[in-house]
Amino acid sequence: MKNLRNSIVLATLLISLPALAQQAKPETFIKWRQSAYQVLVWNSYRIRSNLEGQYNRDDVIKAATIINALANGGLGGLYPAGTDKGKGWRDTTVKPELFHDGARVKELAGNFGREAEELLKVAGSGDAAAVKAQYGKLSQSCKGCHEDFKVKE
Amino acid sequence: MKNLRNSIVLATLLISLPALAQQAKPETFIKWRQSAYQVLVWNSYRIRSNLEGQYNRDDVIKAATIINALANGGLGGLYPAGTDKGKGWRDTTVKPELFHDGARVKELAGNFGREAEELLKVAGSGDAAAVKAQYGKLSQSCKGCHEDFKVKE
Repeated sequence: MKNLRNSIVLATLLISLPALAQQAKPETFIKWRQSAYQVLVWNSYRIRSNLEGQYNRDDVIKAATIINALANGGLGGLYPAGTDKGKGWRDTTVKPELFHDGARVKELAGNFGREAEELLKVAGSGDAAAVKAQYGKLSQSCKGCHEDFKVKE
Repeated sequence: MKNLRNSIVLATLLISLPALAQQAKPETFIKWRQSAYQVLVWNSYRIRSNLEGQYNRDDVIKAATIINALANGGLGGLYPAGTDKGKGWRDTTVKPELFHDGARVKELAGNFGREAEELLKVAGSGDAAAVKAQYGKLSQSCKGCHEDFKVKE
């Protein structure tokens, strides 16, 4: 029975080899996550531009939709084992703690997801003052994670 | 009357100066768009991984949500005048034609947006074969734009 089970495990491993062969490299994951954060920076910039200049409801909704899609879209998958060091577009600025404190990561990621979802809801209202207030809360959730898990530059 | 109007225009310009002073640099826009495309590559990879390996409906929905948010989220705003040349994360690979053929850009961007929206709908069904077919259509719309507006590497 144990041999049979081992054979099945081996057969499964062999069958999935082609897919595994295409597994992205650690450097690629680092590049992707650096890209994802830059997309967040871009859309933060869009929201700030709307708050400081001519307010365009549709533009704010689009920006908030992108932020929300990323914040609740599985960014954690961009931190597989082996990506604590390495160079994507540039050297990673992640702290090793991120790979060891799962509970804290989950808490902070949850905050970020909730604030982003709320921002999208508020964006729909077209109320610039409410967007400004919620954008402030979202920024705090970004900062919280940077303090714990991003090397100061 | 004309002088009054000129004064108002001048006053408006002066008032909006602080916001304008924070306008992102051309290199920043190039970095942001290179990042946005890498986020599309990441989520393409996720969908392919699901189609080639263990299919997870939620993961595909998340990936399709990110792609759709970007495809319909104003990527065009990342190509302001003055960004036809320059270095973001690396030298831009945009062809100058993109800045001169607005009708074609609009057509291709429209295709991309529609295929991405359809992919998100299909992802909701959890039907892997349908996702595979629609993912193929989306990939074609990516390719269409690359052929016209991206320098071959």
